[in-house]
Amino acid sequence: MDNNEPLLIDTDVHIQVGNIMPYLPKVWQSQWKTHGIGLGYMYHSPIRVSRSDAVPERGGAPGSDPDFLISDHMDRYGIDYAILNGNALALSLHPDPDYANAIITAFNDCLVDTWLKVSPRFKGSMFVNASDPAAAAKEIRRIGEHPDIVQIIMASATRMLYGQRFYHPIYEAAEQLGLPVAIHPGTEGVGVSGAPTPSGYPTRYMEWHNILPTNYMAHINSLVCEGVFEKFPRLTFVAIEGGVAWLPHLMWRMDKNYKALRDSTPWLKRLPSEYIKAHIRLTTQPIEEPDDPNHFLQICRMIDAEKTLMFSSDYPHWDNDNPNMIFRGMDKGLKHRIMAGTAADLYGLARRPIYPGTVSGGMSE
Amino acid sequence: MDNNEPLLIDTDVHIQVGNIMPYLPKVWQSQWKTHGIGLGYMYHSPIRVSRSDAVPERGGAPGSDPDFLISDHMDRYGIDYAILNGNALALSLHPDPDYANAIITAFNDCLVDTWLKVSPRFKGSMFVNASDPAAAAKEIRRIGEHPDIVQIIMASATRMLYGQRFYHPIYEAAEQLGLPVAIHPGTEGVGVSGAPTPSGYPTRYMEWHNILPTNYMAHINSLVCEGVFEKFPRLTFVAIEGGVAWLPHLMWRMDKNYKALRDSTPWLKRLPSEYIKAHIRLTTQPIEEPDDPNHFLQICRMIDAEKTLMFSSDYPHWDNDNPNMIFRGMDKGLKHRIMAGTAADLYGLARRPIYPGTVSGGMSE
Repeated sequence: MDNNEPLLIDTDVHIQVGNIMPYLPKVWQSQWKTHGIGLGYMYHSPIRVSRSDAVPERGGAPGSDPDFLISDHMDRYGIDYAILNGNALALSLHPDPDYANAIITAFNDCLVDTWLKVSPRFKGSMFVNASDPAAAAKEIRRIGEHPDIVQIIMASATRMLYGQRFYHPIYEAAEQLGLPVAIHPGTEGVGVSGAPTPSGYPTRYMEWHNILPTNYMAHINSLVCEGVFEKFPRLTFVAIEGGVAWLPHLMWRMDKNYKALRDSTPWLKRLPSEYIKAHIRLTTQPIEEPDDPNHFLQICRMIDAEKTLMFSSDYPHWDNDNPNMIFRGMDKGLKHRIMAGTAADLYGLARRPIYPGTVSGGMSE
Repeated sequence: MDNNEPLLIDTDVHIQVGNIMPYLPKVWQSQWKTHGIGLGYMYHSPIRVSRSDAVPERGGAPGSDPDFLISDHMDRYGIDYAILNGNALALSLHPDPDYANAIITAFNDCLVDTWLKVSPRFKGSMFVNASDPAAAAKEIRRIGEHPDIVQIIMASATRMLYGQRFYHPIYEAAEQLGLPVAIHPGTEGVGVSGAPTPSGYPTRYMEWHNILPTNYMAHINSLVCEGVFEKFPRLTFVAIEGGVAWLPHLMWRMDKNYKALRDSTPWLKRLPSEYIKAHIRLTTQPIEEPDDPNHFLQICRMIDAEKTLMFSSDYPHWDNDNPNMIFRGMDKGLKHRIMAGTAADLYGLARRPIYPGTVSGGMSE
């Protein structure tokens, strides 16, 4: 480890991108002004989604002020880089792909102008409309080469599983530009997506939130079985905020079944668990907290956490994790890989950022 | 451990119940003869569902001959008791509840006559139509007191999650008669059930089979969050053939969320994981087989396996587990609990059966 290596990278920080109206073609402005994303959410947190102490000093919603985000979160914990994830995920679940495509393009342009230009410590996830893969690929090629765009993000809720060939144009463009593709939860049951479980709708927010990782298992299973990582061998898929400790079970079950049923997936050249360890990355928040911390360390060994797991805080959401309070008893080498090393490798962030104190605003002048 | 305690109880043995026509009211006979259960299955195992070496010597389908099942499976491995699970699970997913109710009643009567009377080593799971809970409760009270009926079994695929109050009449009757309620996979995507994942349909049998446990997570989460085990404190719910190693993650995530969101489930008096350990039992097959067997032993400690886990073979299915080849390196006390102890407690099988050799046919004379 050299002295210039980043020590803390936060792979999931939530922002309100800002006012997209100036970036939006006139034809869509009235609908955006009146209805916004315009899809119903049924599951509401009884304690709100964002922490009330994350409201910026200048006012506005939590995650809407770049300066405050740096001081309230990044400087407080010594975070070198934050991967910024905005608030347009549900658009892939809009029935109208033209509306979704236009809003997403505006969001991406606004993200670059109002956030990524503010500080070299900010790196961005660009949105795509996963329900219109040809348009998504075009958008990736339009803006994905921006040096501060480091990832493509999509909602984990979909109408079809992400391994299916419908989505392959997205992966082709992502691989071509060297961008990982990430999924993020929270839109399960929204818009044109189906029920959040194979057996219908959970009753309340807590029950819905408890079970979100099952959709991640379904997507990772689909990606591996459909041969996505044989077809796109340089693609990395990032499972943000979907939990961690379920991965051993999924790998073991997939490997066991593959040994008996591999005739049905002749394109696979390795065990399913080998594709997972090579191509899937998980972010930590909300990290599982067993009574015996040793149990989590055992899970880390089962999943080769030194190369699969990346720290995330989920700031400013209600259940965000404090980087100073997790991974007690973990050895320093593994902890460094989780807190920064794997993310530095994945997102090309080998050096700590150079900035004079809090540089908000300075970089775009 | 005294000398008369059972040493091996198999909690999931599959049988073909037999010819139900004599047990079926005339009005349904034509439909049964022409269409049977009459629901489409889309996911087909490339190596068939049942082992070809389990075809009885006298012919017929695997699991259709009581004598052969005893000699080919129970005597071979020294199994004291087998919990028999028949082939009518999908009926809860039939659009017509009257048809499903009639066929299920016939199946239950046929099960008693053609299997449970054959050997004291056979214990049966009775079917109910989970989609018609009032009829299900009536059926439980009709036949559930039979001394060899030890469990109620339902398909894990449903239109609604099993914690919801729609199903509570089933649990009320089950608790009243002291019968555990079990779910079994394999009908995900069949009949009136929804897609097998929150994001639609898997592509092939292997992919579908890999992901079946996610539905178990959804149901257990629902049962706990909806307060089923506060309302029915003597109820036990058995998760058959749904995997094991995912349970730590589910418990840890539920406990963490409960600490923040418990206001929304004020009827819960304990941590979610405490309800799970007290009221949920898992069967072992298909047991996860990590490269390092110690990893599975670690999982066992995380889930208090000595009271939550019960051996099952899934005979005669393609992926059935051999009781002589699993749980290497496990200490004897824990292994006895899994192989027999917990099932003996749950199903009231404290003594080994008394029978002269293979007693097929003798008990009903």
